[in-house]
Amino acid sequence: MRALDGAVDVLARGECRVALDPITAGKLARHLDRELKDDSATLVHVESGAGRHAHFEDDAYSAQPGVAVVAEDDIAAARAAADLVLCVRAPSEAQIAEFREGAVIVALMTPYQNPQLITTLATQGLTSLCMEFVPRISRAQSMDALSSQAAVAGYHAALLAANESSVFFPMLTTAAGTVRPARVIVVGAGVAGLQAIATAKRLGAQVWAYDIRAAAREQVESLGARMIDTGVDASGEGGYARELTDDERAQQAEALARHMSDAHVVISTAAIPGRPSPRIISREMVEGMQPGAVLVDLAAEGGGNCEMTRPGERVEHGGVTVLGPLDMASSLSVNASEMYAKNLFNLLTPFMKDGELVLDFEDAVLGPMRLTEGGRITHDDVRARAEDAS
Amino acid sequence: MRALDGAVDVLARGECRVALDPITAGKLARHLDRELKDDSATLVHVESGAGRHAHFEDDAYSAQPGVAVVAEDDIAAARAAADLVLCVRAPSEAQIAEFREGAVIVALMTPYQNPQLITTLATQGLTSLCMEFVPRISRAQSMDALSSQAAVAGYHAALLAANESSVFFPMLTTAAGTVRPARVIVVGAGVAGLQAIATAKRLGAQVWAYDIRAAAREQVESLGARMIDTGVDASGEGGYARELTDDERAQQAEALARHMSDAHVVISTAAIPGRPSPRIISREMVEGMQPGAVLVDLAAEGGGNCEMTRPGERVEHGGVTVLGPLDMASSLSVNASEMYAKNLFNLLTPFMKDGELVLDFEDAVLGPMRLTEGGRITHDDVRARAEDAS
Repeated sequence: MRALDGAVDVLARGECRVALDPITAGKLARHLDRELKDDSATLVHVESGAGRHAHFEDDAYSAQPGVAVVAEDDIAAARAAADLVLCVRAPSEAQIAEFREGAVIVALMTPYQNPQLITTLATQGLTSLCMEFVPRISRAQSMDALSSQAAVAGYHAALLAANESSVFFPMLTTAAGTVRPARVIVVGAGVAGLQAIATAKRLGAQVWAYDIRAAAREQVESLGARMIDTGVDASGEGGYARELTDDERAQQAEALARHMSDAHVVISTAAIPGRPSPRIISREMVEGMQPGAVLVDLAAEGGGNCEMTRPGERVEHGGVTVLGPLDMASSLSVNASEMYAKNLFNLLTPFMKDGELVLDFEDAVLGPMRLTEGGRITHDDVRARAEDAS
Repeated sequence: MRALDGAVDVLARGECRVALDPITAGKLARHLDRELKDDSATLVHVESGAGRHAHFEDDAYSAQPGVAVVAEDDIAAARAAADLVLCVRAPSEAQIAEFREGAVIVALMTPYQNPQLITTLATQGLTSLCMEFVPRISRAQSMDALSSQAAVAGYHAALLAANESSVFFPMLTTAAGTVRPARVIVVGAGVAGLQAIATAKRLGAQVWAYDIRAAAREQVESLGARMIDTGVDASGEGGYARELTDDERAQQAEALARHMSDAHVVISTAAIPGRPSPRIISREMVEGMQPGAVLVDLAAEGGGNCEMTRPGERVEHGGVTVLGPLDMASSLSVNASEMYAKNLFNLLTPFMKDGELVLDFEDAVLGPMRLTEGGRITHDDVRARAEDAS
């Protein structure tokens, strides 16, 4: 029986993370080794340069027992031999063609945006697991990459906003007078929103939070922020919000606009994986903000919560700066990679027996994550989307 | 007797501040008015658009009693009539020619870098006050623009560093494991350094400070940071440090390099106004830092504390990013302008009597600030520099 190994791909525009940091790569090798009882095996193969943008040098990987760095010339062979492939983003069409039939590929697949790619994963006979589909149940918290990466993005969004703001976040008492704390509004109090709130509070800002799920109030207040009360509650399934009626939408917009008119910073974080981001902030609401205010739209990847957002760009409108940053988790590459690697480790090691990966798709976590297996797209929604696209 | 008025210039590359914010412009007008007992006079003239980059619109100025906004066509006339001209940066040669003989000009003049300009101020018969030369005595604290602007720059430097860093500043406990706090070193514990320390601490980093003045220890520790002990004490006059001997320099470099080798962020702030910044951080010390580390050199304006710094640029070297930002105070334009305006107000109002400005150069604050008066350069050091340059 051959040992498992993980190849790690560095992909596309702005991606700085890597699927395994050296420490977790070593832990994974030791875990497999304990199962295999074979000291000499090299069990985790890391492609040369894979960790470069996360400042993990090849040397740091090869210093770990059981971990080898694959030189550029040998990458094709390593890919063809791999049983398990761990990636941050989905591999490209060309890369998919390099893997052997039956190999297991795990990544943030963005399956709804990539129907063609998912079809290719299926036709190549690969078993693919989608990290976005880790279910939101307590047992899976330590495997939930959307949460870990959202925490990074939320923290970074608050820093970006503070860095772009023309006012101090903290109150400051100086010989030249007192500076009052900045007023910050965080729209959406999910994992990213809560981390943005916590970071803005750390910096000393006055923070208001807005969320259509009334249940968010307790968490918001435990961070020292205040809830904006719009009189609308739209708690939905799985911790996400349900769709709003038109009246509710108007009521929400009016309350939010009132608060936004004297805010220095708005950070919007209301994203629903695989679906376009809800439009919460209109052009009029931006025009009602004070000159010099900054809006950071963390939902830009899904089109943005704000009508004015252009993903990846900076828009100046009436003295207000609207930023639609992409890859906010990626830019905190060291910690984002470490957390993602831990998610993978926690997800997969329970299914490693005697050095082999035996996936159980009856499992409540693994089942919903499977996209393709045995030549077909096994995930109903994704298959429907792929069939629509073709 | 004519009333005073202040014209405000927006100048050059990257300058976003304005010398008077609307509130302080109004306060200045009221102060003059109380002295003059003439309700109808317009006493403070603000050039149209002067506050634009600090997000102070013309309307906000003209809403203040006694403050008028000067339309573009009338600016030349307003400049020719002004008794007192308040600026952030020194006016240009062309602007200097527009002011009337005997007018008083107050600005951050950077006199040692601008000897030709100071000569022009003298030959045009202007009385000029240099905001960098406010003496460091307790009475002048509320007038000290270098301090107020350094506080802004120090805060912003810490934010920039956090924003550029590939690791979290705070400790984070998540379902995907615990992230340890970042290690930050602040070099130079003056006003900017202390504010950088305070901001990095707010964000949850572990902070070490380095200063050759042993007296800095108490302030550093009161902010929750630790001093790096190099065994060198170089407390000098006026709160600045004295020059080091070669042995002391080597001893300092060795201790600092040891600490820098495992830091995630270094923020250097050791600037001496009007002189080149001391070279504290060598290329070797940067090469000894870990990949992914960030160095923000706030002393870039004076050439930088680090040998690798290129003012205004980003240098990547061996995985370490060296930033030499300029205009860090300027980019927090709202608060930086407000604080600068308060410095001007506190400095000048004691010398306004019956609506007239009567400067007393025997005064302990005003005396050292005077650069030119009655056709000559009155400041000894600046005159020597101007004579060398011509």
